[in-house]
Amino acid sequence: MTRIDLDYCEALDAGDPLAGFRERFALPGDVIYLDGNSLGALPKAALDRVTGVIGKEWGESLIRGWTAHHWIDLPRRLGDKIGRLTGAEPGEVLVGDSTSVNLFKLMAAALRLRPERRVILSERSNFPTDLYIAEGLIDLTGNRHELRLVDGAEITDAIDAETALVFLTHVNYRTGAMHDMGEITAQAHQAGALMLWDLAHSAGAVPVDLNGCDADFAVGCGYKYLNGGPGAPAFLFAASRHHAGLRPALSGWMGHAAPFAFEPGYRPASGLERMLTGTPAVISLAALEAGVDLMLEADSALLRAKSKALGRLFAELMAQRCAGHGFRLASPSDEAARGSQICFSHEHGYPIMQALITRGVIGDFRAPDILRFGFAPLYVRHADIWHAVDHLRAIMESGEWDRPEFHKRASVT
Amino acid sequence: MTRIDLDYCEALDAGDPLAGFRERFALPGDVIYLDGNSLGALPKAALDRVTGVIGKEWGESLIRGWTAHHWIDLPRRLGDKIGRLTGAEPGEVLVGDSTSVNLFKLMAAALRLRPERRVILSERSNFPTDLYIAEGLIDLTGNRHELRLVDGAEITDAIDAETALVFLTHVNYRTGAMHDMGEITAQAHQAGALMLWDLAHSAGAVPVDLNGCDADFAVGCGYKYLNGGPGAPAFLFAASRHHAGLRPALSGWMGHAAPFAFEPGYRPASGLERMLTGTPAVISLAALEAGVDLMLEADSALLRAKSKALGRLFAELMAQRCAGHGFRLASPSDEAARGSQICFSHEHGYPIMQALITRGVIGDFRAPDILRFGFAPLYVRHADIWHAVDHLRAIMESGEWDRPEFHKRASVT
Repeated sequence: MTRIDLDYCEALDAGDPLAGFRERFALPGDVIYLDGNSLGALPKAALDRVTGVIGKEWGESLIRGWTAHHWIDLPRRLGDKIGRLTGAEPGEVLVGDSTSVNLFKLMAAALRLRPERRVILSERSNFPTDLYIAEGLIDLTGNRHELRLVDGAEITDAIDAETALVFLTHVNYRTGAMHDMGEITAQAHQAGALMLWDLAHSAGAVPVDLNGCDADFAVGCGYKYLNGGPGAPAFLFAASRHHAGLRPALSGWMGHAAPFAFEPGYRPASGLERMLTGTPAVISLAALEAGVDLMLEADSALLRAKSKALGRLFAELMAQRCAGHGFRLASPSDEAARGSQICFSHEHGYPIMQALITRGVIGDFRAPDILRFGFAPLYVRHADIWHAVDHLRAIMESGEWDRPEFHKRASVT
Repeated sequence: MTRIDLDYCEALDAGDPLAGFRERFALPGDVIYLDGNSLGALPKAALDRVTGVIGKEWGESLIRGWTAHHWIDLPRRLGDKIGRLTGAEPGEVLVGDSTSVNLFKLMAAALRLRPERRVILSERSNFPTDLYIAEGLIDLTGNRHELRLVDGAEITDAIDAETALVFLTHVNYRTGAMHDMGEITAQAHQAGALMLWDLAHSAGAVPVDLNGCDADFAVGCGYKYLNGGPGAPAFLFAASRHHAGLRPALSGWMGHAAPFAFEPGYRPASGLERMLTGTPAVISLAALEAGVDLMLEADSALLRAKSKALGRLFAELMAQRCAGHGFRLASPSDEAARGSQICFSHEHGYPIMQALITRGVIGDFRAPDILRFGFAPLYVRHADIWHAVDHLRAIMESGEWDRPEFHKRASVT
């Protein structure tokens, strides 16, 4: 293809139908932010929304806020909104707790729907917390199940009559490789297994159609592409056909059929509400709602098209401008099989990323050698991609990456 | 005693050494708030703190906030502060998740420390979610345990060689009756059982000395007397002698020995951090920190003295001004055995409370017939108690409570 320059990138921005969304975010002027897959940027509306919830709703209504401001409905109301982004019907998504806790809730419930089966199947490179949660559940329930881990490409072959549950992250956190949700779910069902998807790196970035692919369960993260803020509440999905059969393991009062009757014995709520546990985290939920509302304004086909275009542009610029510096594409080269990120491996990946961050280009590093760049289509510009690769080229050509301070490992990356 | 009047109450306020704390809260002018045991009031500092975390920390630092603003340390840092309020050492308290989820974590871990014992003992009138969580855990782990419920007064007699865990709420949510933590914990230990305390209605209101009474485990709530906001994160305590033996059931990545190494297998962190699960809810934690910081400024002996004085005043005014209207004290008459609330039963309790709330006196109603009044000593004045009972007297004498609109039941109370 022809040589890309900054003018070309700026022309793409000028024609970008999503360009107007960028000003809805509070982004620092000195930063090119390619880490929205780790922590999304701040929607300007979030600050007003949270200020209102704290100052007006909590401050003035106090306990009356639970009804006056419908706090009590937040997990479901916000769940229905996330359902619109992920192909779920109203009542099939709830928001609250962390992704890890929601995984525990759904895995525990799913295994009890297949009591005669003993295998939980996932891929070795799944996000670690997903695997840890399965380990903990198996250990707690007496080691009656086996966590079987295979390579991503071998998943469908590994599903068999012993498989109770297959659980996978749709878009791999390190490589960006994206599974075919429809195909794997169908294979799981064909073998009589249930399917749980982790949408942490999908919701808000790539199209997801939970009911279209007949998924049984899903979880997802509020603080990545949904821009809900650091440690935002997570969400869980269960297809309505399963609701009546779900036995909640974390059976707290908010999942009771009559939470405010204060009955001594647990009776599950009739619908998915039974999967609620403690009191809704109103302030965090409000911040997340601002992010989700903004995402709902965007056309999902345009989001995906831009996400692909940004990834393609990054790959092409790397080929044109950083060839010979030792970077190897660690994501699928087929953009249809890639989420909204692109990754390169490099033996000096850690110091290179530190040098980039020091220049204001924020991606992240994942062990052992992955440089990860995420493309949040609501606020990343084509020109940002140009500048990011331009900085990377400068860092490599000058040897700047090899400065001693860039080799120091931080405890959190 | 002599007849109490408003002047007398105002004189008590004038001499109150904690009086200055009231202006640190944003309280609506037209309300007498006696429901801080359900949702605490808004500390003015919380709004600034959260605005800073969102606007400056999240907005400007983005992903770098985890280290730059020490977000990653929040569960432990805030835990240490709550530890100072509850008699725990640094490293023995963590903040995050909900009270219900924390109960699940600790109960699951506790039962595994007493594998040969099958009874979990509590009182029938414990807060329902505590009982529900035990039910869910027992059901999940194959019904190998029995949840045995007795009356509060029979607890120590019911502890025996089969008892794995005793779990109680220190201050009863409905009656305000307060257990003797030291005595019951000693009885549990004498029988070889472990002791878990729910401090939901204690932390920030009555003195708690977890290590002084040799407690094994505890949980507590952030949104009541700690003034952390609606649905604030909860906390958990485990005595340091247990840390190395705790097997986390909700074994998420934040409890891993090296969360950012992304190892495929779970290895618990060395200390209590192993009980962390998902990503810390930074915005909610920041709001709670403002409440806890404010509480730490107050002398705990003064807090308890004022809390008792407010309860005593309420009881005396009820005797002097509302006698003959059918109210019966539903709390212990001995103020040393009462938490920071006082309750009365009345056959028309529900409409009476609605009438009070309509007049701006906010307490709450708990089925079947309890009117509950909480006294947050940081912001409730003696004059508030006068006015509250004065309104109650007016409502009873005029028959105002019997208006049809006050009999309508709301779904949330």
